[in-house]
Amino acid sequence: MTTYDIALIGFGGVNRTLAELIAARGEALNSELGFGLRVVAITDLRLGSLVRPEGVDLPLALNLAGSETFAEHGGSADTNNESVIRTCTADIICEATFTNPDDGEPAVSHVRWALESGKSVCTTNKGPVALRGAELTSLAEQNGVHFEFEGAVMSGTPVIRLAKKMFAGLKLNAFEGILNGTSNYVLGRMEAGLDFEAAIQEAQALGYAEANPAADIEGYDVQLKVLILANELLEAGIELKDVQRKGISTVTREDLRKASQEGRRWKLVGSARRNPDGTVTAGVAPTALPLDHGLAGISGATNAASFDTDLLGPVTVSGPGAGRVETAYALLSDIIAMHAAKAGAAAHV
Amino acid sequence: MTTYDIALIGFGGVNRTLAELIAARGEALNSELGFGLRVVAITDLRLGSLVRPEGVDLPLALNLAGSETFAEHGGSADTNNESVIRTCTADIICEATFTNPDDGEPAVSHVRWALESGKSVCTTNKGPVALRGAELTSLAEQNGVHFEFEGAVMSGTPVIRLAKKMFAGLKLNAFEGILNGTSNYVLGRMEAGLDFEAAIQEAQALGYAEANPAADIEGYDVQLKVLILANELLEAGIELKDVQRKGISTVTREDLRKASQEGRRWKLVGSARRNPDGTVTAGVAPTALPLDHGLAGISGATNAASFDTDLLGPVTVSGPGAGRVETAYALLSDIIAMHAAKAGAAAHV
Repeated sequence: MTTYDIALIGFGGVNRTLAELIAARGEALNSELGFGLRVVAITDLRLGSLVRPEGVDLPLALNLAGSETFAEHGGSADTNNESVIRTCTADIICEATFTNPDDGEPAVSHVRWALESGKSVCTTNKGPVALRGAELTSLAEQNGVHFEFEGAVMSGTPVIRLAKKMFAGLKLNAFEGILNGTSNYVLGRMEAGLDFEAAIQEAQALGYAEANPAADIEGYDVQLKVLILANELLEAGIELKDVQRKGISTVTREDLRKASQEGRRWKLVGSARRNPDGTVTAGVAPTALPLDHGLAGISGATNAASFDTDLLGPVTVSGPGAGRVETAYALLSDIIAMHAAKAGAAAHV
Repeated sequence: MTTYDIALIGFGGVNRTLAELIAARGEALNSELGFGLRVVAITDLRLGSLVRPEGVDLPLALNLAGSETFAEHGGSADTNNESVIRTCTADIICEATFTNPDDGEPAVSHVRWALESGKSVCTTNKGPVALRGAELTSLAEQNGVHFEFEGAVMSGTPVIRLAKKMFAGLKLNAFEGILNGTSNYVLGRMEAGLDFEAAIQEAQALGYAEANPAADIEGYDVQLKVLILANELLEAGIELKDVQRKGISTVTREDLRKASQEGRRWKLVGSARRNPDGTVTAGVAPTALPLDHGLAGISGATNAASFDTDLLGPVTVSGPGAGRVETAYALLSDIIAMHAAKAGAAAHV
């Protein structure tokens, strides 16, 4: 049986959960998926790095005491991501660090180093895909490796891969989605009577909203996701500045009340549409949807994406948009897709 | 490039639309999908049969005058489906006739003859899958061919294949769905104030409901679909009698009014769940769903299926549940899946 050696770049919630999954269910996964997974390197800003070509002791790595680092267990106290990514024996780099929304760093560099050194990459970061997607995809092709990023949109809910694999033979003309759980939760609570500030505080208390909720509330997060979907699924070839952005901070309780009377619900909708001239118009804006619209019933922190296809009309998928386990599954689903592609490619040799 | 020779069994709405798609978009499909399609036989109860190993003239077959049959064009006036299916040169049989809900005939025999003679089958009929699924799947395996039936549930909306391909590595514990557009439309119109009879008449006028609407309204249609999904996705190993059935004719306008006041909506829900002891409980029943339930917002003739997975929680797909073009696409998606499986299998030789 094939075993893929993987390196975990960033050992926060997502990659840690992936390691827990492998430790707890490795054998079951092997028999179900037809391949094994072995962690051969972990790097983390706080914990340092641990490189073990023969396989990291996962229970040890997962159960460090509060102040311990990998240095006390034969690893290094500092984190030279470039060196680890380029020289470790991993087949696949699982990138789950963080993204500066201006340039996608440090995730973009992590992905680039991996692809340049002939390693496949799965990432849950929006930055590399949204801001450097074309460059990195082309780099992966040049090096004969894979670049997968299902977790960049709606965590592990199949969206990018669903549209690419399940819609073969269909023409995809447009999509629209509720792609940010925090803003959707806030709008729902405002419908229930809370004011904007109270709804945000509640979302923060529940862990949905960050201390600075602007990325969620002002549509920056959705803007990146729309950019990813437009380029990946509509071959839009557009940049961040081409995605119009308007957040929900301008939506008032009065707007919500009025919409309710008219049989509508306000949602923060990210969308893109291919125009007759071939260009793509993309944007994020609060929209008062009629109740029979496929996205009007998406409540709470749930996300959804609706695809407008020629033969089926609209097809919608909804599911979790965030969460550690949900996002760790996105990485696993990326590796499963790489394995399937390898089997398919071998058929054409 | 591979070309698959196909036979169309039944030349009513669905297979006729598939033929139109091939005639209109054949070249584009080739370049997009990596394979060609050639129709080498058509049989139809009314039109007779036309067998052409070198390829049927599709414009001719599609444009017969009102009273013409295939007999006037070198075919036969009568339809010996068994002989055509067993002896024609097709690689794939596209079965779109009709199903007797008691024994699945004549579709079951069509599928059996094809598989026995070493031909793959795609069908849009519920009967063969629901009533003889295990037998026919095993027959396909014995003969090294494929048996695909995405169109049996929710027409071309990916449901069976979505759960099988997109949920790798997940445990599927249960599903629930709105699997009949007619009953969902009728409930929606009753919510809007129509009485049961008027809502059904409107559905009939729109072409949603048949002259005898019992299959839709009394849950027989959903019962078959639940049986298919339970056996295919939960390995339930159950029979039709194991799927409890209750239709919507007992739901009153008063029930709907009361639910509306309580923030609920009545839906005809088909569902199945794996119990702790490994058995599966399956049924169809009208259910008053809370508004934040993923299926509560599914309006009109739209269908939806919601899957309860271990790592992602509920993931829901919604889309068309019927329609000629939508169901013809289901057949095309089945053939695409056969092609992909062939490529994958070749890798393991």
